[in-house]
Amino acid sequence: MKSKLLHQAAERTYAIVFDSGDEAVGGLTRFAREQGLSAARFTGIGAFSSVVFGYFDLELEDYQQLPIAEQVEVASLIGDIALADGEPKLHAHIVVTKRDGSAWGGHLLEGNVRPTLEVLLVESPAYLCRKHDPSTGLPLISL
Amino acid sequence: MKSKLLHQAAERTYAIVFDSGDEAVGGLTRFAREQGLSAARFTGIGAFSSVVFGYFDLELEDYQQLPIAEQVEVASLIGDIALADGEPKLHAHIVVTKRDGSAWGGHLLEGNVRPTLEVLLVESPAYLCRKHDPSTGLPLISL
Amino acid sequence: MKSKLLHQAAERTYAIVFDSGDEAVGGLTRFAREQGLSAARFTGIGAFSSVVFGYFDLELEDYQQLPIAEQVEVASLIGDIALADGEPKLHAHIVVTKRDGSAWGGHLLEGNVRPTLEVLLVESPAYLCRKHDPSTGLPLISL
Repeated sequence: MKSKLLHQAAERTYAIVFDSGDEAVGGLTRFAREQGLSAARFTGIGAFSSVVFGYFDLELEDYQQLPIAEQVEVASLIGDIALADGEPKLHAHIVVTKRDGSAWGGHLLEGNVRPTLEVLLVESPAYLCRKHDPSTGLPLISL
Repeated sequence: MKSKLLHQAAERTYAIVFDSGDEAVGGLTRFAREQGLSAARFTGIGAFSSVVFGYFDLELEDYQQLPIAEQVEVASLIGDIALADGEPKLHAHIVVTKRDGSAWGGHLLEGNVRPTLEVLLVESPAYLCRKHDPSTGLPLISL
Repeated sequence: MKSKLLHQAAERTYAIVFDSGDEAVGGLTRFAREQGLSAARFTGIGAFSSVVFGYFDLELEDYQQLPIAEQVEVASLIGDIALADGEPKLHAHIVVTKRDGSAWGGHLLEGNVRPTLEVLLVESPAYLCRKHDPSTGLPLISL
């Protein structure tokens, strides 16, 4: 375990609100690039018309895709943004709930918003960088 | 997708702790009114003796209520506060877990605390406003 | 319900990244002791090779342990740190997801990281204290 003090001075907080038809992963990634974010964290709630999340298969070194093609509540969206190869990279995990209240989730690959997704994002005036981890193939944060 | 810079200056952080018998939605809403919150985000953990959450039915334009009448852990509480018709309005989603560890959740409608609910709330010195969305009937954040 | 203003001045944000083989509860507790944290909140995402969470049994006044001995995504980790008997004490709840996307969770007792756990922790320049609650046997935050 390693840690890094990200700031003692003022951070910046953004409210990011998605509309029906927006896709969450692409939208947050574009936002991070436009704002030049180098270290951020966020939480969010809302709803999706469909979602694809992933379970990382350590043997295959890839995500097994789990799609849900129905309207779900976004019960929890938690994530961070760090630099990978000089560009902001999103890492987000999600819990969604179906009409019966049952909860499902994993690594967020695609989330199609309907009718809203409300994300509160805090940018730190610091850098977090991801580096390729040869043992898993994943870009892990290197402090 | 739209975004709004909520602050660059100091935010305020509150710890809000509920006791057995307190109801979470009413308590957080009262707190928001008493403090005059106009933009806030929060996370929380704890436990409920019973809970009612909702799944928004887009055709009915209303929440289908899903009650759980047993002791559950509050595994994740994420939400925000914005103004609607000039008054602070709470929006919170929840994941609870039962005795067997299974997770359930949705839009929080009522949560009866037992024995505690610990909420960390950050107030931004800014305004977020909700407006009635005619296509869903929901009060969505308008940036 | 009670509340406490934790700060109006600068907070400190830490990124805490765990590696394969690290245990999350012990690691976060050590970090809190080393940094002398007296009031903090955190969120995190990542994955575990195995996890033990608890469901608090109010009659037994103890946690019923629920172990999962397989690789899971950490879909949501939310928690806080407060002082108990003068030492920082961790309180964390978790939602994990299995290969089929199903979500499970509770009070985090032990989480064995593989390959990463990314925690964003915010320290407030304030004190939160836990006191023994005779009616449940739990150390609850006393404001």
